[in-house]
Formats: sequence, C-alpha cells, structure tokens
Amino acid sequence: MYKILNNDLIREYVDSTPEIRNLLLGSDDSIDKIEVSEIGDGNLNFVYIIKGLKKSIILKQAVPFLRCVGEEYPLSRVRMTFEIEALKTEKEICPDFVPQIYYSSHDMSLVVMQNLDSHKILRGEMINREVFPLLSEHISTFLADTLFYTSDFYLSSAQKKEDVKKFINIELCKITEDFIFTHPYEENDTNEYNPELDMSVVKNFRQNRDVKTAVAKMRYKFMSEAQALLHGDLHTGSIMLNKKETYVIDPEFAFYGPIGFDVGIYLANLVMSYFSLKKDENEYRDYVREMIKDTWDMFASKFKANMIEHEKNTKSLQWDYPQGMEHFEHFVDIFIDGIFSDSIGFMACEMFRRTVGLAKVADVAGIKDLKRRAKIEKNILECASKLITSKYENIDEIIKEIQEYDR
Amino acid sequence: MYKILNNDLIREYVDSTPEIRNLLLGSDDSIDKIEVSEIGDGNLNFVYIIKGLKKSIILKQAVPFLRCVGEEYPLSRVRMTFEIEALKTEKEICPDFVPQIYYSSHDMSLVVMQNLDSHKILRGEMINREVFPLLSEHISTFLADTLFYTSDFYLSSAQKKEDVKKFINIELCKITEDFIFTHPYEENDTNEYNPELDMSVVKNFRQNRDVKTAVAKMRYKFMSEAQALLHGDLHTGSIMLNKKETYVIDPEFAFYGPIGFDVGIYLANLVMSYFSLKKDENEYRDYVREMIKDTWDMFASKFKANMIEHEKNTKSLQWDYPQGMEHFEHFVDIFIDGIFSDSIGFMACEMFRRTVGLAKVADVAGIKDLKRRAKIEKNILECASKLITSKYENIDEIIKEIQEYDR
Repeated sequence: MYKILNNDLIREYVDSTPEIRNLLLGSDDSIDKIEVSEIGDGNLNFVYIIKGLKKSIILKQAVPFLRCVGEEYPLSRVRMTFEIEALKTEKEICPDFVPQIYYSSHDMSLVVMQNLDSHKILRGEMINREVFPLLSEHISTFLADTLFYTSDFYLSSAQKKEDVKKFINIELCKITEDFIFTHPYEENDTNEYNPELDMSVVKNFRQNRDVKTAVAKMRYKFMSEAQALLHGDLHTGSIMLNKKETYVIDPEFAFYGPIGFDVGIYLANLVMSYFSLKKDENEYRDYVREMIKDTWDMFASKFKANMIEHEKNTKSLQWDYPQGMEHFEHFVDIFIDGIFSDSIGFMACEMFRRTVGLAKVADVAGIKDLKRRAKIEKNILECASKLITSKYENIDEIIKEIQEYDR
Repeated sequence: MYKILNNDLIREYVDSTPEIRNLLLGSDDSIDKIEVSEIGDGNLNFVYIIKGLKKSIILKQAVPFLRCVGEEYPLSRVRMTFEIEALKTEKEICPDFVPQIYYSSHDMSLVVMQNLDSHKILRGEMINREVFPLLSEHISTFLADTLFYTSDFYLSSAQKKEDVKKFINIELCKITEDFIFTHPYEENDTNEYNPELDMSVVKNFRQNRDVKTAVAKMRYKFMSEAQALLHGDLHTGSIMLNKKETYVIDPEFAFYGPIGFDVGIYLANLVMSYFSLKKDENEYRDYVREMIKDTWDMFASKFKANMIEHEKNTKSLQWDYPQGMEHFEHFVDIFIDGIFSDSIGFMACEMFRRTVGLAKVADVAGIKDLKRRAKIEKNILECASKLITSKYENIDEIIKEIQEYDR
C-alpha cells in the first residue's frame, strides 16, 4: 500500500483521497487546479506545498531511508507514525503552538497539515537578527505544558505506561544517542571540523575525566529516564514563527525521556546563537540573553504552577494535612532544581555536538571567516566543558558563565 | 482456553499435556499415580505440588483476582506472563539461582517448575536463626548480574527498549506505587497498625517535610527510571535456600525500574529482621549485620567488575585514549554511588510500609508481645526517617545508624 510520492503521484493521491481533495478544491474542480512544489530542505523527509483553490497545505512523507544521505542509509518510515502521534498529543495539550493536522496515514507514512506560510524558521530569523517579543512566553508554555501533561505527575500510572510503550522510538533515539552523546566525544569518522579549529581544544574535552563522566551520565539519563513525552529535537530549526504566533514542528524524535532534554536543547541553540554575535551587536546580545533567562524562568514557574494547580484539584491524601501543600511545594522546588541541572547538562552536550559533530548550526557554521568561526567554536567548547562539570543555582549564573566564555 | 484448575482438573490437564505428563510418569503409567496437593501460601496465585513416579514438580497458576482477598479484588492474570518471561530472562543470566522452568503456558497463565523440596523460605529461616554462609555471595551475584545484563550498559540500545516495552507491567507496578510509596504515608484505610504502636511516631513521619519529599522522590524514581529488569519484590520471602543453594522465586512484579529498588528492598528485609532480634542474641546480630554489609559490598564490587569487564571486551571508542579506562572506572564509581543512595532511599520506604502498611513482615509482626513489637516498630520508623533524609558514604555508616536506632 505504501509508495513514495512525487509531484505527479501526489496529484493522483490527492484526487483519490477525499479528506485531502476537499480541503483544496470544490467538488466540481479539476485536479489540474492544484499546484505541487517540493520544498524539501528537511534532512529526513520529503515535504511538499500543495496549493489548491480553497487553501494551501503541507504534505510531509517519510521515505524508508535518510533523505539527506540517500537510499544507502536506511531508516524505517515508522518515524512518521511517531511524528503523527506526537503532533496529535502536543496539539491536544498546546493547540496554539502546534500546526493543525488535516489528515494522516500511517500506511503511507504521511501527514497533511497547515501551511505556515506567514511564518519563518526561528534559526534563520535569529541569523537575520529578528526579534520576537512573544517567543519566550510561547515556548515556555509549550515546554511546561507538554512536559507536565504527559508526565507521571498528571497522567494515571496506567496511561503513562501505555504511552511510554507507544512511544518506544528505537531508531530515532539511537540517532540521538550516537550523534549527541557518543560520536562527538571520540575520534569518530562522522565528526566534522572547521579546518581552522584548534584540535587541542577538542582533545582537551575528549580526554577530560570530568567532562567524559558527565557526558556519560547525561547519555544514561537520556536512555533510561522516562519522565515525559519529549519533542526530542527542539532546536531553533524546529520552530516556525512570526511576531504573533509560534509553532513547534517536526517531533519525529518524540519519546519518553528526561524533561531537561527538551529544555536544554532549546537553550543550547540560543546560547550558540549568542556566541555567534559580534561584540558590537549590543542590542541583539541583550535580547538573546533575555531569551535565555526568560525561557528558563517562565518554564520553571509555569511547570510549578501546573504541579500546584493539579495538586489543588486532586487533593491527594498524602499531602492532606496542615502543612501538606507547603511540603508539596518544597518537593516541586527540589524537582525543578533537578530539571535545571539536567537542562544545563543536556545544553552542554548539544553545544559540543553542534560544534564537532556531524550536524552544525548555521548561526555558527554559516560564518564565512573560518578563523572567527574557530574562535567562537573554541569558546563554545570551553564553555560547554565548564557548564557540564560545574554546579549552578539559577539561570543568572549560567548567563554569567556564558558571558565569561564569550571572549 | 483458560480455566482455573483445582486438584481434579490438574489431573486432566497433566494427562493431556505431554510436556508435563512425561516429566512425572512413564508412558505406560496411569495418571492415577500422581499426587496433587495445594500448598497455597501465596498472596496472589495458586501453587500445587504434583508428585509423580519420576519426580515432583511445582505448578503455579494465576487466577484473575487477588488470591488472598478473593474475587472481589480483580487482578489480571497477565501477571503470570511477566513472571514467566522474567524467570526465563533471569534463568539465562543466573542459571544457578533461578528454579528450572519445565513448561509454561500464557493461555493457561501457569508455569511448571522445579520443586525446591530441600529448600526453605529465607524469612522463616531467619526467624529460626538459621545461618547461610553462601547466601550473601549468591544474592549479590544474582543482583549484580540480573541488573547489569538487562541494563543499557550491556544490552544494545534497541534490545533494551524492546525489553522495556515487553515488561511494561501496569497492574503490579500500581500495587507497589500504592502500597510501598503512597498509602503508608497517609491516613489510608488499607494501613494496619499494631494497637500498641504509638501513633504520634506515625504522625511524625507522615507530616515531616523532608521525609515526605524524599518519599515522593523515590516514588517518582520508581515510576520513571527504566534502568534494568528488576525482580520487583525481592524480600526474604522471595528466596528459597539451603546451606548450599539459593533460589530467587516469584518475579511477577518484574519491570524496568531503578537498580537500587531490588537492592534496597532486600536490604530492608535484613534490617527489619535485625531490629526484631533480642538484645542478647549477639551471634545472630553479628551475622545479620555482616549479611547487610556483605550484600552491598559484594554487589557493588561485582556490578563494577561486570561494567569493567564489558568495557574491556567491547573497547568502545569513547574511552579509547591513554587515561580512558581510568576515567571509565571513575564514571562507574559515581554510578554505583548513585545506586547506593537510591538503595538506601528504597530501603527506608520498605521499612515504613512493612510497619504501617497492609503487608507486614513476620520477623516483626510475628512477635506476640505487642509492646515489645511496638518498641521495635518505633525504632524501625524512626530509623527509616533518619535514613531517607540523610546522606551516607558507605554501608558501614548505614550499619552504624541502624545500631544507633536499635534502642
């Protein structure tokens, strides 16, 4: 039943799938009235824009290999099933921040969704020094809500375990385990380096006991802590936005993992964007620092508010005594401290891997002056080494540390 | 296809199941030659001894309710599937410490296994002050091997995730979540108290901020940390032994959870046995303290040896540099410190729940002098409160603390 679509086959497919056809065309309109174009800048999948007379939509299809490499790198198309299921779960929790899904087919490994044509990818926008006054408010809500409402703190014990089972995402977790937590810390052929990067800096963290131990710990957390349904790949390329709206896309890496992973990956991408700025870009530097601070602080306070509100609604017997709510709040504070330290650990791993691993960030890797880029990369690697081997109390200390290493 | 067996139906079932019949009888022998008796001291299941002419065997069948309560407490018989699968996994890893499985049927929710007729339950043996010179050696191997060889440190990333999925054990985990981590810490109707127990001691820990916070943390760890395939109920009633051999039975609570849980539950049962001893039983007191120390120390050194040996065999690239093995060993030490602190936390939870929760330990609850029993229970509760709210470096400090509270 599955077949790989192309521009022509998409016409046939749309014509024979009323759920899609009716979105695009009136019942009397010919299928010739739709326009299909592939935008395919994705690493994994094929993405098409289909313009009809009534609206335009996105059709995203997974193929049984890694799109950016080709058929020699097989990757099961079941990843689309995880993407579809994660989109549905996230949409239910955060309707404002997840694109509308019009149709999905597990058999065809495709999803048809809202075309975000007045929105752009956050990473590119940050490279263009665009400012989004609502972004931190939105993304902190997305994080606090998706991560709370899929956790053991909200779901029934049985439902959460069913969801853990449903989201066992073997292949895509393995990609993360390899490319975020393993290859960058060893002399692996998949790594790629700026030729101007001082390799002694790389050797320094690769042979540093405390860095290696801390990375191994974060890797193990990623593999074993089933806390909440993560997006799993929440970098600034997975966010589309304009001044008013923010959408989180591409959750094919979704699985039950440690809450700090989503938070840390996102923060790391802000931090690397910060390191990429020139010394005289004062306004944008202030803005990115503020984003880092606001994202964490708003996430923490919203997650806490979710916990407290839920406890007030359910009034569990275990906290039902005069100081019970106060004690519960103390537990929440300690739990959030744990998410904070996990987030910083995962943040550091993302900083390492985006600098010496296979996948780079355009904010830094797009810098044409390779010597300047190398200097920034050195700062990022040394900062990541410091962050992952130290203890911090709050986000202000992290920001101070980043400024320290922004030499 | 499923039906509940009884003494008569077992004859028919054995007669029509060649895999079982052939274990017991020659092909010409009449089925009348077998003797069936129910030993049923289990809380959950029906257990029969079947004596044939060739050997005697155990047949254990799950019924769709909680055996010790009756049909009004439904409990899915799928628990037998978990028991069978866990027995098979454990047997492969630790053939010496797991009874032989002759036959199993998921449809009939039953398992047929070795009759351990020259072995007795450890709890009863400790109540009789019996000494087992090989027990700590055996049980520490069982713990170190089952917990290492089912973890992310040994299994492939894919295999481990498949196993997590296979062992999602919703109903029996819920029993633990409720009866170990929730009800004992609140005024719940399922709790049972020695009428002589000073209830102000109970109130003290139930309304103590640091105890409650620590218990909530352990509960969350139990629910979210999928580290290794646990036995899940490793108290001294789940061990059958004689002076030479040790067998671990009844793993129906098996699931992927935190490594420290199995270790902590077992240690807690030793600790409670210790508290139940009279002041002048010096020799047995020394012996139980030694068991506590040996179990932890041997477990830790065997688990570490498993880690190091595996790393030497696989020679992963990430630790492949001059100080790599030394750094890996440092990681292992830190990881085992984490298991230690988890184990003490879980140990304390087991001490609380076995004192004020529904299920008691005969070592303490069997003491006929209720005043003496209440004194011991007070010591156990106060010791558990101290243990779960403090930091310890090693097992000697734990033993010292226990002696401190053994007033």
